[in-house]
Amino acid sequence: MKHHRVHFEDLRRFIEAAFLAHELPAADAARVAALMAEADLQGSDGHGVIRLPQYSKRLRAGGINRRPDIRVVQERAAMAVVDGDNGMGHLVVSRAVDIAIEKARSAGVAWVGTRLSNHAGPASLYARRPLEHDMLGLYFAVGNANHLPPWGGMEMLLSTNPISVGIPADEEPPVVLDMATTVAAYGKVKAKAKRGELMPPGWMIDRQGQPLLDPRRASEGFLLPIGDHKGYGLALVVGLLAGTLAGAAMGRDVIDFNTDHQTVTNTGQAILVIDLRAFGDPAHFKHQVDRLVRDMRGSERLPGVERIWLPGEQSFEKRRRHAQEGIPISAALLDELAGLAAELGVEPMATNGVQT
Amino acid sequence: MKHHRVHFEDLRRFIEAAFLAHELPAADAARVAALMAEADLQGSDGHGVIRLPQYSKRLRAGGINRRPDIRVVQERAAMAVVDGDNGMGHLVVSRAVDIAIEKARSAGVAWVGTRLSNHAGPASLYARRPLEHDMLGLYFAVGNANHLPPWGGMEMLLSTNPISVGIPADEEPPVVLDMATTVAAYGKVKAKAKRGELMPPGWMIDRQGQPLLDPRRASEGFLLPIGDHKGYGLALVVGLLAGTLAGAAMGRDVIDFNTDHQTVTNTGQAILVIDLRAFGDPAHFKHQVDRLVRDMRGSERLPGVERIWLPGEQSFEKRRRHAQEGIPISAALLDELAGLAAELGVEPMATNGVQT
Repeated sequence: MKHHRVHFEDLRRFIEAAFLAHELPAADAARVAALMAEADLQGSDGHGVIRLPQYSKRLRAGGINRRPDIRVVQERAAMAVVDGDNGMGHLVVSRAVDIAIEKARSAGVAWVGTRLSNHAGPASLYARRPLEHDMLGLYFAVGNANHLPPWGGMEMLLSTNPISVGIPADEEPPVVLDMATTVAAYGKVKAKAKRGELMPPGWMIDRQGQPLLDPRRASEGFLLPIGDHKGYGLALVVGLLAGTLAGAAMGRDVIDFNTDHQTVTNTGQAILVIDLRAFGDPAHFKHQVDRLVRDMRGSERLPGVERIWLPGEQSFEKRRRHAQEGIPISAALLDELAGLAAELGVEPMATNGVQT
Repeated sequence: MKHHRVHFEDLRRFIEAAFLAHELPAADAARVAALMAEADLQGSDGHGVIRLPQYSKRLRAGGINRRPDIRVVQERAAMAVVDGDNGMGHLVVSRAVDIAIEKARSAGVAWVGTRLSNHAGPASLYARRPLEHDMLGLYFAVGNANHLPPWGGMEMLLSTNPISVGIPADEEPPVVLDMATTVAAYGKVKAKAKRGELMPPGWMIDRQGQPLLDPRRASEGFLLPIGDHKGYGLALVVGLLAGTLAGAAMGRDVIDFNTDHQTVTNTGQAILVIDLRAFGDPAHFKHQVDRLVRDMRGSERLPGVERIWLPGEQSFEKRRRHAQEGIPISAALLDELAGLAAELGVEPMATNGVQT
């Protein structure tokens, strides 16, 4: 299928214009746009501009508060709960991460949870933020639609509830794990559907327990957890930690934001930040990470394996390549965004003319 | 295969006597024995008394410090690093958990890492400890032998690096996830070998990439991670968090304690404790957990599924059953322990005479 290349700055500007047209405050529109464009830049194409039409629907339907009063409602030396007042999730989680970084600077470690937040894009955007401060980040979130039944069940009571961990290295790219607790994230299912591709077996099953391969039939089945009962257990505890603990939705309370654009989602996320300085010399730690990364990458490979990758390394390389060559956006998505631009009365997104 | 039933108190007393014979201080022998017997009580049979012969070998070989000076070497309001001085891991981690609980009481959240610790038994023993204080626990550990290559590799640079999360409920059993980041924990492989059983396909592969089913050939192959590259990523970040961060061994530095009984293992573990009171009313939270547990358990099941289990629920039921009926110990293990008892000059373990 055809892809066009879009410069990061053109993508960011287009998204910003769309949110300005939705009457978000300028600083908020800029912040959300930068994070969404960053998602596409790093190759998280299920969580970037592909979500803009959906966010627009929700904004139009009144399902998101354009001018939220995002504030701390619980606080101790090493924790806080941020009430997002139903604002854009990117804003709520950014605030939570900023607070966690500040608190970790003195307490050594800090956990900040959100409630009344919304979908915030790829987990790694947030787990990666503390790295520039010589800190680690662990991020947990409740997904915005339930696609996963408990192990042995067929009622979808859980979401893909992702886990992301960002760990800085010295000369090497940081180690950045970003994983759904299901074999595939639902965003990847959607991206397959947009691209008109089939899913591999093992991603989803239908209500008869048979493999479901057509992503356009995704609503007829459910995702499979990694490691069978283990992935179910992970999804459950991530949901309790990121959702229930801070008073956000979990289980039957989760709103399916694919079909319901109005009801407040009460999304929950949690970030744990650890200051490396509390444990010793950050330079020493980062040097150790370099050494471990090189040990993994340089170790003996199974026959037929070209390269051993570290978590986050492929995103890191994509980011570099996309920054140079532009970000690939499918022709179908570009058409959809052109339609949205017309509706919102903003300039359509510029592409750099390269088609692949 | 034949099993005898042993009362918890007989098991605990036998282990205590063994450690006293090894010249551990009385309080330390009692504490380790209680935790090891607790492991068997909850059905973690790969991590209980089955490890006693190995711990004994290591104590005899001078690989564990009988009289360690376990102390805090780094500290802030919400974190600490505990240097275990190469003492028994159960003692070092217990200390770490106690400190984390104390710190969480004021800071709301606390992370305590260990270095120069040793194998400490099943992760859930420690993640469960904060629950009685209306706190949550998250526990991470570096395993004591590398059985897992990076994804696509065949050099075993990673261990099964477990994750455990303990979350209290009100009337329901607590949610206690305890999972290796591999499809099977190595302790389960050992337990299969002791019981003379084959492993199911998917637990291990050999160096040709073929399924390995005979647990007695375990040294010829390696464990498989859950969710392919995801489990590899989890094992790696758990190792960095539980090991590298606090200055403990990780990657090539990990000592295989199955074959080397002398070298200091420098094992690392980490516990994160979260005080529910910092987030609101603990009773409200625990009530929500009850509701979610019941929603999961009562939800529609796939054809042929008898029951939907919650993480930790089977251990909870085993604990109750084993407390009443005694803990099943295989005849082979009992023989081995009788031999150990003779060597150490302690009374052999009493069984309750029931054989199954």
